Amino acid sequence: MSFSVTVIGSNSAIPAHGRHPSAQVVTINDKVYLIDCGEGTQMRLNEFGVKWMRVNQIFISHLHGDHFFGLIGVVSTCHLMRRNRPLDIYSPPGLESIIRDQLIAGQTELMYELRFHELNPEQSERIYENEDITVDTVVLNHRIPCLGFIFREKQRQRKIIREKLAEYQIPVEFIPDIKAGKDILDEGTGKRILNSEITTDPPRPRSYAYCCDTAYFPNIVPYIQGVDLLYHDCTFAEDSEQRAADTFHSTTIQAARIAQQAGVARLMIGHFSSKYDDLQVLLREAQSVFPLSILAIEGRTTAIER
Amino acid sequence: MSFSVTVIGSNSAIPAHGRHPSAQVVTINDKVYLIDCGEGTQMRLNEFGVKWMRVNQIFISHLHGDHFFGLIGVVSTCHLMRRNRPLDIYSPPGLESIIRDQLIAGQTELMYELRFHELNPEQSERIYENEDITVDTVVLNHRIPCLGFIFREKQRQRKIIREKLAEYQIPVEFIPDIKAGKDILDEGTGKRILNSEITTDPPRPRSYAYCCDTAYFPNIVPYIQGVDLLYHDCTFAEDSEQRAADTFHSTTIQAARIAQQAGVARLMIGHFSSKYDDLQVLLREAQSVFPLSILAIEGRTTAIER
Repeated sequence: MSFSVTVIGSNSAIPAHGRHPSAQVVTINDKVYLIDCGEGTQMRLNEFGVKWMRVNQIFISHLHGDHFFGLIGVVSTCHLMRRNRPLDIYSPPGLESIIRDQLIAGQTELMYELRFHELNPEQSERIYENEDITVDTVVLNHRIPCLGFIFREKQRQRKIIREKLAEYQIPVEFIPDIKAGKDILDEGTGKRILNSEITTDPPRPRSYAYCCDTAYFPNIVPYIQGVDLLYHDCTFAEDSEQRAADTFHSTTIQAARIAQQAGVARLMIGHFSSKYDDLQVLLREAQSVFPLSILAIEGRTTAIER
Repeated sequence: MSFSVTVIGSNSAIPAHGRHPSAQVVTINDKVYLIDCGEGTQMRLNEFGVKWMRVNQIFISHLHGDHFFGLIGVVSTCHLMRRNRPLDIYSPPGLESIIRDQLIAGQTELMYELRFHELNPEQSERIYENEDITVDTVVLNHRIPCLGFIFREKQRQRKIIREKLAEYQIPVEFIPDIKAGKDILDEGTGKRILNSEITTDPPRPRSYAYCCDTAYFPNIVPYIQGVDLLYHDCTFAEDSEQRAADTFHSTTIQAARIAQQAGVARLMIGHFSSKYDDLQVLLREAQSVFPLSILAIEGRTTAIER
């Protein structure tokens, strides 16, 4: 099962140095999810060859423009492309009227159902679930209500060792119980067959946490503990710690400390201030605390391996 | 005095083939005006090296998204760049609450004054004037209220022939009257000096008309009569005349007929449907009726010569 993150926009509020406002595509088992949607997201999705008409869920972290000004364009183009499947949008309260008022101004009646899900910005909760994944929120610390999103693969069932099925002549109707981890009784001998003898462990579920925008906020650590990839606000270098605090953003060192405390496998830093043209200084600082840090580079896809 | 039009976005609603939604920059005497502001306009203004922080007036033709979804980004970035001069926005009614509601959602209090001017979508009127130019609206025929904009240089004063001033020993206090076209009395001889003898004609005022989006609508002809450059809706080729009528857009031939009837010097066609990758067929059709037709090409500046 594929699991990857493609950065669409990596900059903070002012577009600069060829970098754009926040947006990411998460691809899991060929399903495509969109996180945040800064201005121009639809154009860059096209540019990067993302089949974004397949997106059915969009998760918006907060209502600063660099995270949602591109949403109305996505919504409109879906209409013009004659979408007919529903589109679900998850965000802190206040987004629905903004989008609908713009459609009303243009006298546009959408050809598909647009469903808004208002999230509680004060409490972490499970907001989405399908056969592959769950998505939970984590409350961040920003100037306005802001949520992070944690994507987790569901625990898959145990893998049956085919040869053992034959060896013990186990009937097919037992397969669901075996996959679920149960031992079974051998009907011929009356002997118990241990599940561990006829199955192997399922693959470890992978996870991705998107935590942007936020000040340094160790409260999030228990929620993102051990994720395979953490994307964390890293608007500033260490020497701008005061400016980071004033604007409710994080520095390189702060992002790396959170990664360290949460014991994540890898850290991706992003939401760069337009004051930085060359990002290597930011990368070096983050790596000085957390070596497995990488930069969010627009158009680049990071696979989350098992 | 410079007078030019730079195309920022030339496509209709769906961005395609590297073309973008509507936006244009009009530069007159080093002042920069913005017409329409589709999504991503601020990024493309940067890309094309337009010093758009100098824009003080933005004219929005109508409230279909491909003409205004980029405005909130422009407004926000002006704030983040610490603009302090007022910004005036002219549009049919309904835009102000759309913009302000998005700022409120992000708890953004602008650092500069944003002034909205609601235009009458049912009647042509003068909406703007400064020392260089006037801007008038023209009522178009679109699915929702939609206005065209006509930029005209003001008639400049007559040019004094310096040698004649000396020859007749005319005192400087007469200069304003002479520039205004008045004859004067020679105080020595009591003889009338004809204005035409001591001045030459001022340069002919130039003009530009932006007429997009609109169905074929000859009512506009008297308003745009004789302009130096007409930008006209040309969403479709001739074979899509019915589709053009259904969507209140124009074909190549219709745009060219309007140019012909209005006796304009040049026609620029734009607002191309995303169904056209190669635009040459559109250009050829327009030129078959009106030879001085050109394509709107993004990033290209067309100078309006005297």
